[in-house]
Amino acid sequence: MHLAIDIATKNVENGGGPFGAVIVKDNEIISQSFNTVTTSNDPTAHAEINAIRKACKAMETFDLSGCEIYSSCEPCPMCLSAIYWARIEKIYFAADRYDASNVGFNDSFIYNELSLPISERKIPIENLMKEEGQEPFELWRKSTIKIEY
Amino acid sequence: MHLAIDIATKNVENGGGPFGAVIVKDNEIISQSFNTVTTSNDPTAHAEINAIRKACKAMETFDLSGCEIYSSCEPCPMCLSAIYWARIEKIYFAADRYDASNVGFNDSFIYNELSLPISERKIPIENLMKEEGQEPFELWRKSTIKIEY
Repeated sequence: MHLAIDIATKNVENGGGPFGAVIVKDNEIISQSFNTVTTSNDPTAHAEINAIRKACKAMETFDLSGCEIYSSCEPCPMCLSAIYWARIEKIYFAADRYDASNVGFNDSFIYNELSLPISERKIPIENLMKEEGQEPFELWRKSTIKIEY
Repeated sequence: MHLAIDIATKNVENGGGPFGAVIVKDNEIISQSFNTVTTSNDPTAHAEINAIRKACKAMETFDLSGCEIYSSCEPCPMCLSAIYWARIEKIYFAADRYDASNVGFNDSFIYNELSLPISERKIPIENLMKEEGQEPFELWRKSTIKIEY
């Protein structure tokens, strides 16, 4: 966690966002990264997402079972969900979503939005062509070449 | 939406996941993409995330204000949060999280997890060094070179 916080601090010194993350497996560091949203023009490039992508690249897999993640701040809902998709098995964080909100990041707001029914959310969301939307799933169900995850 | 569903179908035919997304601004397609989790070893490479990354690259910005997204399936919490971070202004989807669960994807499960208190979630999550975790935020607050987002 010391390292994750150091990475976050260093990133601010370099003009990036105040977030760092480290992924560990069997007491060995697999990847470490920081927030590059503004420096790489990528709103998904949070520290945890970057660290997950680097770890997967290093290990040539999309499955980080057996890994743990240390994040300088509580993962936002995007990063938390990515951690679930990546099957990371334990999460440590230092600052929390309210600390992040206090310095201008929307983590806490997005957590609230996700818990609301679709009709009450701030970004309007509309269901179209539900019937036709089943087609790719039908094909997936029957596919003999699919790789499940 | 026809295009998003077609992209999803074609991706299954090519061995990828059954998801497609299209980002539009002023009636013009800015980016389109499909799920590449297994083909690129990246658990974050959902159709919507890929489409956001491509749109940001094309427009050289991390802010997709004024854009709308068409997704063949209701965005999972990772993608929905990414849509918030990217400031996309409207979301259309065809199949929903329950349809996705029916063919083996965890969208609905992750939505449930996010709504639970930390102590009741399946992946254990622990708060460490909360005090030290404020350091990067303190530095961010005082930084004169930061780019806010």
